[in-house]
Amino acid sequence: MAGKPKFAVFGGGSWATAIVKMLTSNLDEVGWYMRSQTALEHIQKRSHNPNYLSSVEFDTSKLRLSNDINEMVTYADYLVFVIPSAFIDSELQKLTVSLKGKVIVTAIKGIVPETSLIVGDHFYTNYKIPFKDIAVITGPCHAEEVALEKLSYLTIACADEKKAKIISKNLSNDYIKCNISDDVKGTEYAAMLKNIYAIAAGIAHGLGYGDNFQAVLMSNAIREMKRYVKKVHKMKRDINDSAYLGDLLVTGYSVFSRNRMFGNMIGKGYTVKSAQMEMSMIAEGYYATKSAYNLNQQKGKKKAKTPIINAVYDILYDGNDPKQVFSKLTEKLN
Amino acid sequence: MAGKPKFAVFGGGSWATAIVKMLTSNLDEVGWYMRSQTALEHIQKRSHNPNYLSSVEFDTSKLRLSNDINEMVTYADYLVFVIPSAFIDSELQKLTVSLKGKVIVTAIKGIVPETSLIVGDHFYTNYKIPFKDIAVITGPCHAEEVALEKLSYLTIACADEKKAKIISKNLSNDYIKCNISDDVKGTEYAAMLKNIYAIAAGIAHGLGYGDNFQAVLMSNAIREMKRYVKKVHKMKRDINDSAYLGDLLVTGYSVFSRNRMFGNMIGKGYTVKSAQMEMSMIAEGYYATKSAYNLNQQKGKKKAKTPIINAVYDILYDGNDPKQVFSKLTEKLN
Repeated sequence: MAGKPKFAVFGGGSWATAIVKMLTSNLDEVGWYMRSQTALEHIQKRSHNPNYLSSVEFDTSKLRLSNDINEMVTYADYLVFVIPSAFIDSELQKLTVSLKGKVIVTAIKGIVPETSLIVGDHFYTNYKIPFKDIAVITGPCHAEEVALEKLSYLTIACADEKKAKIISKNLSNDYIKCNISDDVKGTEYAAMLKNIYAIAAGIAHGLGYGDNFQAVLMSNAIREMKRYVKKVHKMKRDINDSAYLGDLLVTGYSVFSRNRMFGNMIGKGYTVKSAQMEMSMIAEGYYATKSAYNLNQQKGKKKAKTPIINAVYDILYDGNDPKQVFSKLTEKLN
Repeated sequence: MAGKPKFAVFGGGSWATAIVKMLTSNLDEVGWYMRSQTALEHIQKRSHNPNYLSSVEFDTSKLRLSNDINEMVTYADYLVFVIPSAFIDSELQKLTVSLKGKVIVTAIKGIVPETSLIVGDHFYTNYKIPFKDIAVITGPCHAEEVALEKLSYLTIACADEKKAKIISKNLSNDYIKCNISDDVKGTEYAAMLKNIYAIAAGIAHGLGYGDNFQAVLMSNAIREMKRYVKKVHKMKRDINDSAYLGDLLVTGYSVFSRNRMFGNMIGKGYTVKSAQMEMSMIAEGYYATKSAYNLNQQKGKKKAKTPIINAVYDILYDGNDPKQVFSKLTEKLN
């Protein structure tokens, strides 16, 4: 890794597009891998992603575009994965080249279904990437506001502070400020859990609960997140840092959040299946609910007290009536 | 205080009206004092407050209405004050009867301008009310949602747990759940500070900052509140309890909050004076900003780090440009 490190982004969605935008404000060349050759050709020809954040115009002379994942892995030192967790494993199956020596940067929220692991752990367990080479990018950050160049703060977590700083430096600009952290596991779990709480916020809204209750729900959610993350990885952290509380708030209070919208439909009486069919993409929090719930249950007596996750699980996976489940949940909050 | 304790509410605004509504769901008689004889007559005749939450219909046979503060103080055991802090002192000047033996319940957010004290301390210092006889009612709770009977949680703080429980019991019903706490000072300061943070949220919005920044601002605000309240009264508390974080969120994220609206106008370029003239009532956070700032500065080297309060103070009282002040503030947040 002599000289400037090379970055490549893997994924074609809005968050991937936003991260490519940030990187191009600092680097002369940014690798960008996505599956769709059509989308790549569109970007090359028209300077924007046709499917996501299409208002963002790229200087294509700075983009190194490819739909060959092996070529892109070979090219870069820092591999930024922004592929939905449900598809990451099948993408990685295509690898014929080694990930050894690469820094894996994950901007994915969720659990890899095939291994029931958060993405960092998935790379550690299945690709023998040491933790000092794994980093996490977390919000609070709607990609849409990056497109509009609205001031946003990211947190870059890595056990190796030097690497966190390099990533931070290459993402920062006028409208992006980066904090660094050494809590790789905590930030990654928090990013996953917040989607479950956003579903809960949506369900509450759909059921007709108001702003007073929403504030109580969020204040209980951050306490629950603190308990959960502590069980997963005990360390000194302030759960009110932007990477945890900020990320929860931007999702829980956003009317644009896919997870909140999904919850809202469930609260309004849609079945899980019909809500999913209504939405073009399955909300990440749907999978996260099952994973987070099961992971906690496996701890037996040592499990964290998680009334909100349990309530969402009861509704989404046990088919219980949202109204009744939330009525019981309100007794457990304070 | 043999038998059922008697409650009286002092104030005619929306929060007073909401509290009277809660009390009438539990008590056969509730005292209600306000200055306006016209409003009292309207309530007696038409069963609703003409000026605030007018959709709430009262069973007038349960109301003991009076515009004589002395008569009402004499009548009740629990005196619930819901008069804006700017007017409480002049109202109390009317007293000719003693407050001795009464339980003072304050639902007022802010500082008494004449004494620069929070309301509980004002009663303690000027009326020799012992702290075991002072209680605080705090949210998160928009009065408008009480009118709609939307589920809301209150916190009742009192050094005397028995009294907190009595107040709690008489306010609780199907849609009001009460927590109790022994943090009288902390909850009262938090209720005041949150109005300053709501002004900050409004200014940010008015200046064009987006949801990503708003989440960072709120996550910094709760950490700042924690530091501030700790300096004022050190004790074991969870700042993420509903009375602190919940109350901050319901105000900071509410587009109906007077304080947020006031901040929004400042952010959009109104002068403080013109924003105040535009609004029928001065936002409580305006006074709170000065009080909270000065109180902190008086602590000299022991003062809490309060970049957000300082920024709002700079704008409202030193006439500095909101855009520049917030640009500097963003460097101090994380």
